[in-house]
Amino acid sequence: MARVRPTLEDRERVRKLAESILSRISDLAKERGLPAQAMLVGSAARGTWLAGDHDLDIFIAVPEGSELEDALNLARAMAQEHEEKYAEHPYVHAIIEGFDVDLVPCYLLENTSCLKSAVDRTPFHTRYVLERIKGMEDQVLLLKQFMKGVGVYGSELKVGGCSGYLSELLVLHYGSFMGTLEGTSGWRPGEIIDLEGRGTLSHDAPMVVVDPVDPRRNVAAALTLDKMLQFAASARCFRKGPSLDFFFPRSIQPLTDEELIKTMEERESAFILLEFLAPPVVEDILFPQLRKAEESIRALLTRNEFSVLRSDVESADGLAWALFELGVWELPRIMRRFGPPAYESDHISRFISSHPQPISGPYVEGGRAVVEVERKYTKAWDLLEGEMSKLSLGKHLAVEVQKGHNIYVGPALTNIKIPGFRTFLARYFRRRQRIC
Amino acid sequence: MARVRPTLEDRERVRKLAESILSRISDLAKERGLPAQAMLVGSAARGTWLAGDHDLDIFIAVPEGSELEDALNLARAMAQEHEEKYAEHPYVHAIIEGFDVDLVPCYLLENTSCLKSAVDRTPFHTRYVLERIKGMEDQVLLLKQFMKGVGVYGSELKVGGCSGYLSELLVLHYGSFMGTLEGTSGWRPGEIIDLEGRGTLSHDAPMVVVDPVDPRRNVAAALTLDKMLQFAASARCFRKGPSLDFFFPRSIQPLTDEELIKTMEERESAFILLEFLAPPVVEDILFPQLRKAEESIRALLTRNEFSVLRSDVESADGLAWALFELGVWELPRIMRRFGPPAYESDHISRFISSHPQPISGPYVEGGRAVVEVERKYTKAWDLLEGEMSKLSLGKHLAVEVQKGHNIYVGPALTNIKIPGFRTFLARYFRRRQRIC
Repeated sequence: MARVRPTLEDRERVRKLAESILSRISDLAKERGLPAQAMLVGSAARGTWLAGDHDLDIFIAVPEGSELEDALNLARAMAQEHEEKYAEHPYVHAIIEGFDVDLVPCYLLENTSCLKSAVDRTPFHTRYVLERIKGMEDQVLLLKQFMKGVGVYGSELKVGGCSGYLSELLVLHYGSFMGTLEGTSGWRPGEIIDLEGRGTLSHDAPMVVVDPVDPRRNVAAALTLDKMLQFAASARCFRKGPSLDFFFPRSIQPLTDEELIKTMEERESAFILLEFLAPPVVEDILFPQLRKAEESIRALLTRNEFSVLRSDVESADGLAWALFELGVWELPRIMRRFGPPAYESDHISRFISSHPQPISGPYVEGGRAVVEVERKYTKAWDLLEGEMSKLSLGKHLAVEVQKGHNIYVGPALTNIKIPGFRTFLARYFRRRQRIC
Repeated sequence: MARVRPTLEDRERVRKLAESILSRISDLAKERGLPAQAMLVGSAARGTWLAGDHDLDIFIAVPEGSELEDALNLARAMAQEHEEKYAEHPYVHAIIEGFDVDLVPCYLLENTSCLKSAVDRTPFHTRYVLERIKGMEDQVLLLKQFMKGVGVYGSELKVGGCSGYLSELLVLHYGSFMGTLEGTSGWRPGEIIDLEGRGTLSHDAPMVVVDPVDPRRNVAAALTLDKMLQFAASARCFRKGPSLDFFFPRSIQPLTDEELIKTMEERESAFILLEFLAPPVVEDILFPQLRKAEESIRALLTRNEFSVLRSDVESADGLAWALFELGVWELPRIMRRFGPPAYESDHISRFISSHPQPISGPYVEGGRAVVEVERKYTKAWDLLEGEMSKLSLGKHLAVEVQKGHNIYVGPALTNIKIPGFRTFLARYFRRRQRIC
């Protein structure tokens, strides 16, 4: 518990910092004659933040009918040095006394029936949890650390796991940390959790946790099927053989050149990496585009008969990568093309005349016309380079890839020394989850 | 026409030979006091045999209730030098004056309602065609030669094409050679031809030609979908641009070593050949087993992630071969194994414990447990050799393959000098049909 629960000292520090920020915003608002209220939300407000976390979420609420811009200006004035970020609306991120502080404008609403933006919901979440969580904060901390340890914590799109709010709701629903693991152990696709029995909408998601403050919303919307099942499998394993390793797994070190070469030689597979500058967007915009690019390239490779064993994407140090592990880098010159059914004479004629000089064929096989023709790209890297411009890569990515990109093949991966990349490779190779 | 129609001289020779055989059988039957009747059947009886063919089919019929053995003994006595063959029943094959003569015992029946054996139907076929074909014999000859030329003639299982009787029925149905090609041009799977409008049974076949003398039977039962569509495509091409080449295509010469090496280098694909002694059975038994073996080996290769571009089988000079053209001969050491859905904890446990030391994994992907493990066979020839004994190869083949077999890889194919094998390869590479 000591490793997950913040010390009294930490708690005091957080309380004081939050108070001071809130009162400075209050002062600024009075100076400007603005009816704005600042409030601490998130895990810090609920006493459910993990030791070592240094995040503060502070919302600056203005009444309905006011301008959100007023709240944003307060946030800007609050912290001299800050950067502006953008989720659904712009917000301010600043580092204050070593804490990551997000200052988020929102509307002050009576209830959740007419939300203007997703963030307007957050104060209601904080209130709902605060009113019920008393005495169970440690259970939430254990659950959050467990989720972190088994890799399912975080509702950002890069992770696709559970949010802090979701973990709090699970503890409220199942009563405790161990109760949650017991419940989770039996999860199957289609699981529904509805604390207030108010869910009405059906969702196209692996599981649904009805938001008690807004029954139209699925709190588990970001949770992917694989993370959900990974969580359930980890829970089963923990109940069979509990261990601290679940909470604090061995950390992953960047691969050295030697380790990288040795691992690739052991696997004998064919690695191809696409590298380009990461577009200047937040991860929640970047990662869906990276995954889309990954899927487009996988489809391109597969369509051209290169079998893909596995692939993954990462971004670090302003760069982005898409990694593909293939069975082979090269295929033979000859390939088959299947045409329409041999009795569709109109379509057949077009198919035949578009392959005027096949190496073998045309012939009828399985009821269809078939030709054997020369493969346009026999090497996977030529295929990728040659068809890149036709791929659907996502708006921001397409721009960057067009500006410039590198393709690395096999041992050439060692040329990339960036630790974030080497850690990505280490995670890729050591991919191992607890499954019972 | 001159190249397909037998000369007057030929006709006279056939007539005399047939008469002399029939009368000698008749004499033999009288000597033995047997109520047997010999009759000429097949294309020689109907005046529809192709120039250059030297086949005579003679049936020796005994009344119902008699022993077929009596007829077989007559056949044996008829030709001192003969071999005995076996289709549904034993029959005698002899070479008499340069002709291949089949002497086939059968029953003498009033009608086809209670046939004892498939051959008992043949006299009825001959009678049906003889009564109607007069004046259209040349049309049948043209059609047969056309079918030969485009590779769809012969109802033996090795070919899967049209029988002589089927070609006669088509001319009767469509009225002429060109009429048949016009009709054939529009064939689609499910085509039904019923000359007497008596068909009742439904058949599981690409097309049905109801036997006018036995409406339960499909005369086109042996015709495969591909041969049917190939015939239709050839007919369309001929009608667009008629040419003698359809009837008399360029003959295929055995490949030389140089041609074989050059062609394999051009294609860049990976050839693997299995060779063994052909079991001593007729082609109609051998080829279905060869095809079955081909399918078993294809499935084995595909299951183990070796992609098969094309394959084929052949037999000549007492040997049999199964040829496989692969994308690559070797795959990397690493491979993925997909387990059950990650929430089926019972099945999962068994899956996980059967892969105690995966190279990567286990992990959840696409909702299923996945491990990355060492491939048992990274080379296609090792896979084939290692798993051969577990394959379902067909009764007679399995025996021969177990006795001994060779596996040839790539350029090693040149070690097989047998012309029948080299012609097989030439046909494999030059596989080309007319498709319009």
